Amino acid sequence: MALNGEPQVVVLVGGVGGAKLAHGLTQTLPPENLTVIVNTGDDFWHYGLRICPDLDTVMYTLAGVVDKVNGWGRAGDTTTMLDALRGYGEDAWFRLGDQDLATHVLRTTMIHGGERLTNITARLAAALGVRVRLLPMTDAPVSTMLDTVEYGELEFQTYFVRYRWQPTVKAIRYGGIDMAAVSVEAQAAIAAADLILIAPSNPWLSICPILSLPGMRDLLLARAVPRIAVSPIVGGKAIKGPAAKLMAELGYTVSPPTVAAVYGAVINGFVYDQRDTEVVITEVETTQMDTVMQSEHDRAVLARRILEWALRKTS
Amino acid sequence: MALNGEPQVVVLVGGVGGAKLAHGLTQTLPPENLTVIVNTGDDFWHYGLRICPDLDTVMYTLAGVVDKVNGWGRAGDTTTMLDALRGYGEDAWFRLGDQDLATHVLRTTMIHGGERLTNITARLAAALGVRVRLLPMTDAPVSTMLDTVEYGELEFQTYFVRYRWQPTVKAIRYGGIDMAAVSVEAQAAIAAADLILIAPSNPWLSICPILSLPGMRDLLLARAVPRIAVSPIVGGKAIKGPAAKLMAELGYTVSPPTVAAVYGAVINGFVYDQRDTEVVITEVETTQMDTVMQSEHDRAVLARRILEWALRKTS
Repeated sequence: MALNGEPQVVVLVGGVGGAKLAHGLTQTLPPENLTVIVNTGDDFWHYGLRICPDLDTVMYTLAGVVDKVNGWGRAGDTTTMLDALRGYGEDAWFRLGDQDLATHVLRTTMIHGGERLTNITARLAAALGVRVRLLPMTDAPVSTMLDTVEYGELEFQTYFVRYRWQPTVKAIRYGGIDMAAVSVEAQAAIAAADLILIAPSNPWLSICPILSLPGMRDLLLARAVPRIAVSPIVGGKAIKGPAAKLMAELGYTVSPPTVAAVYGAVINGFVYDQRDTEVVITEVETTQMDTVMQSEHDRAVLARRILEWALRKTS
Repeated sequence: MALNGEPQVVVLVGGVGGAKLAHGLTQTLPPENLTVIVNTGDDFWHYGLRICPDLDTVMYTLAGVVDKVNGWGRAGDTTTMLDALRGYGEDAWFRLGDQDLATHVLRTTMIHGGERLTNITARLAAALGVRVRLLPMTDAPVSTMLDTVEYGELEFQTYFVRYRWQPTVKAIRYGGIDMAAVSVEAQAAIAAADLILIAPSNPWLSICPILSLPGMRDLLLARAVPRIAVSPIVGGKAIKGPAAKLMAELGYTVSPPTVAAVYGAVINGFVYDQRDTEVVITEVETTQMDTVMQSEHDRAVLARRILEWALRKTS
């Protein structure tokens, strides 16, 4: 427990789904008690800009400036630059909002200046008023690559945005992961955590890049605290995005036990949806809750219930 | 003369003033008969973007998309990105319009891809519908540097935009000029020209960088054709910008003869304003015209009169 008597919580997240749970946790915990560790396997270079989609989604969500309809990008953003790019004959398949561009431009400038992504993220987030600690999983570049039936190997954003996650995935690898160190800040947060959560994000595209960082599994396994994942699969479907489709393509059964099995010994607790009344999991301690966060209130309720279940376990 | 019976014209220009005369020439000549060679000494890196203010001003003017009030930037442009940058606490002293950003982003991407500025400019200009040949003076980076009393040496845009050309200039140098070659395209255009014009741009900040490229003076002097400059000084003042202030700071008399003297043997004809009734120049053949281009019509009239005077001389 921290000096304020509240648990120190670390949550591993991807983009939209993870941002929702992180946002719920900010409504439940003092800001100094929460560290959000974000997947950066989606990051890519586009028109010379370093774009970190998951970091930005989480940052904008926690800052309260996210586009609430899409769940990503900035509210009320325009695409004047992008339209002008198209005027030059560019395909411009990745949405770059004008406000959003300021994030990419500033981040890119700082990267070229030799700044660490951790410090860049801290500066951007602080300027937007984010008070919890927001950490990229690593300062090194990692590229989630998808080997597809139709196009061969694709960079994540090409698969996800350009081809709208329609190609059939045969295999996934995390390019550069062997050279990517867990940052000292992420190590310290995990070492000090009373509770480690894995958000209901895509296991293969959002969470496994984080878990695949050299040493990350050992850091987590070394912590004798609740390590709890939340299933992103509800009723045989993904709440959002390609998780269910990908699961089937990789040969797995599309159900919560598959998610629990992918995380294996990394977790000692698993939360899945109360709608999945037929699902039985015996390999890990479980509980069922309403995990579908449709409103901001739902996020806070789910966060509080997870904390209550985790704290009951440890007390 | 070209096959179409019209003269091949090369005009050396800086930003706003040069763009006006170039625009006037496009109303007088077939597009294949005009080559505009633009100063790139103002170019700079800003937030990781390669910005070429004079090239953009001329390109937007010739494309008919320029902001007609400012004389630079794109008409109706917004500054959403810039405002968001300020939201991150940035000073953001250089105006980057959202549409304008597309030009910088695309150019920067192509520069990092190893493309020559000449080819980049051709592609951007063609996409905007510019039909005359628009050439940067060189593909190499050149930086006009101003040694000032107040701040020491400043990059051009810092002097010009950030400090609104208020510092007192002691000396000027063109950084990198010794390594900057006149492009083969500019060489070919000069070699084929029936008439070479120097626009009423700032002699020290716009034209001398072009003339200072290694070999450029010899290329011009080798051409036995009219080589005519237009004075940017009218009635002891500059039409726009710091030309008069700079002239005085560098110890020159603020009048057309100074301009003619700076160009020296490079020119064999000089046009200055009919308002300067007291001015007498004997070192070079001269004529006086209304050189103040207040309307688009004025531009075409001035361009036509200059061509007529030049052609009469050669016929």
